[in-house]
Amino acid sequence: MHATLREIRKTPEGVKIAQRAFEDFIAHHDFRLPREVVYTGCGSSHFLSQPLAMATTRLGGRGVSLPCSELLYSREFYPIGNPELLVAISRSGETTEAVNALKSAGVPKFALTAYESTLSREADYSLIVPAHEESVVMTHSFTAFYFAYLQLLLESFGRETFDAEKTAGLTKEMIRNESYIREIVENFDFRNVIFLGSGILYPIALEAMLKMKEMAIFWSEAYPTFEVRHGFKSIADEGTLVVLLADKPFDWHDKLTEEFRGQGARVLTVGRRNTGADYFIETPEVDELLTPVLHLPVIQLLAYYKAVSLGLNPDRPRFLSKVVKW
Amino acid sequence: MHATLREIRKTPEGVKIAQRAFEDFIAHHDFRLPREVVYTGCGSSHFLSQPLAMATTRLGGRGVSLPCSELLYSREFYPIGNPELLVAISRSGETTEAVNALKSAGVPKFALTAYESTLSREADYSLIVPAHEESVVMTHSFTAFYFAYLQLLLESFGRETFDAEKTAGLTKEMIRNESYIREIVENFDFRNVIFLGSGILYPIALEAMLKMKEMAIFWSEAYPTFEVRHGFKSIADEGTLVVLLADKPFDWHDKLTEEFRGQGARVLTVGRRNTGADYFIETPEVDELLTPVLHLPVIQLLAYYKAVSLGLNPDRPRFLSKVVKW
Repeated sequence: MHATLREIRKTPEGVKIAQRAFEDFIAHHDFRLPREVVYTGCGSSHFLSQPLAMATTRLGGRGVSLPCSELLYSREFYPIGNPELLVAISRSGETTEAVNALKSAGVPKFALTAYESTLSREADYSLIVPAHEESVVMTHSFTAFYFAYLQLLLESFGRETFDAEKTAGLTKEMIRNESYIREIVENFDFRNVIFLGSGILYPIALEAMLKMKEMAIFWSEAYPTFEVRHGFKSIADEGTLVVLLADKPFDWHDKLTEEFRGQGARVLTVGRRNTGADYFIETPEVDELLTPVLHLPVIQLLAYYKAVSLGLNPDRPRFLSKVVKW
Repeated sequence: MHATLREIRKTPEGVKIAQRAFEDFIAHHDFRLPREVVYTGCGSSHFLSQPLAMATTRLGGRGVSLPCSELLYSREFYPIGNPELLVAISRSGETTEAVNALKSAGVPKFALTAYESTLSREADYSLIVPAHEESVVMTHSFTAFYFAYLQLLLESFGRETFDAEKTAGLTKEMIRNESYIREIVENFDFRNVIFLGSGILYPIALEAMLKMKEMAIFWSEAYPTFEVRHGFKSIADEGTLVVLLADKPFDWHDKLTEEFRGQGARVLTVGRRNTGADYFIETPEVDELLTPVLHLPVIQLLAYYKAVSLGLNPDRPRFLSKVVKW
């Protein structure tokens, strides 16, 4: 079995590892996250920095996220303001740009990583989530990092944290769709794929797009749900799979589904209710901040099976390495 | 001749129209743009909202940009703060989501549009830039809107405005590369294209990506320059054209160019200095806020000639209409 598939299936375990890392952190640190935070990372870690920033904003703070390289070379163009903390994310803790971005901060530094590493040593505070992965691409560690940091955020803002056991169980439910996902890929030889999500599900759509490129070297796109109608939809035809990551039911999702089907595309809806799509994966009702945890294993499995169907080895993505250094 | 090509060639004229619209606005309004501004638009207008937000931030204010639909349905996830103005952009002034986003604002409303329209009537202030286009896709009006608003921004922040005649001349110089751009497209039948830009050139890379999809129904991507190394570069091989939109010379551009060429891709650099690329278009030295004006006609011509080489009619993009309504 591919290491990548094993890692995806470890998502429930990752949630539990995340909970232990969170509990360990608050037991040993008299530190609460402040309200104005800048988040940074590269690639998947940048897409992870976005829902963390969004959760911060949603809870009443101000979270801004930027790719490390933009923070390093073009920060004067971005509305960073006067943050009270910089959070840098890197699975290995050794990504050159993440380490440099952290070093460049004139504010307290926080590392979110899987290892004791250069990043954690350079930081004033480190949340180390040991969701270790053999795979080159980031899979269950993304979910684990998100969950651990979310718990710390809720705790810091005086909110109730989520039940980790229950959350792990929900991810297990989502993974039960594995054979259905494989079937979709085997039955529909799509030529490109468009992921759609709004709010906190938009960066999950971006991460889905990246997983497809990394594992399946594949034409994949991601847009804020309704933004796709403005020009981008030109590429959707009978060779296209549109994946709608939906949170709460919303009538216009049905209209959007109909519009894409009218262009010949097929639609997979992942959400609470079928929108009239060709394929449907149901998600349980959870707090909106928890929705990424439900969608992540689904989009990872989709990329994995697309890669396999194309005869590629998802464990050895072309031109990529586990840690990006200059 | 295609209307789209005619519109692109009108860029210098568009800059002059923009200057007149700006002068007319300040002659008739005792109004200066405030420092905290939220910008919104759909599709190309969203990509235009980004450099406007960046210019605002660069000049010492705080500019945040969001697609209209995200502002309408998911605003609680974005760090909007307490803006003093909402600027909504729509070429026609009739885009449903732009009108609704403007209406939803609890702050003063500003319309940036080409016509007296629903948007301008709903707004407290309107900058009407009559850079009218026959083409479905937005071309020289993008440049004209950007230039007119930039002038107003500079004026509002007490800075010297740009010389419009001179700027129009610079865009004319850039359009002189038309036959070279056509040659690149005719000589290299690329299968996908990746646009790269940092800071204020990143949204121009996004707009380039959209032009390719709209006109050529083509696999196109856009990333912040160095972010592309983190996973996305897996899709670049001997069938790939990488377009590096560069501002100031920077040694790491050479290293990035070398990395892509090592994967078999060809690189087109548009900037002050060749980075060791296969193709090179030189830009004159200008203030960084003016750089989008140089790159826009180049990336529009590239999309236009790619569409033509694929036997498509850029004037009639598939599935698209000039004004997007629900």
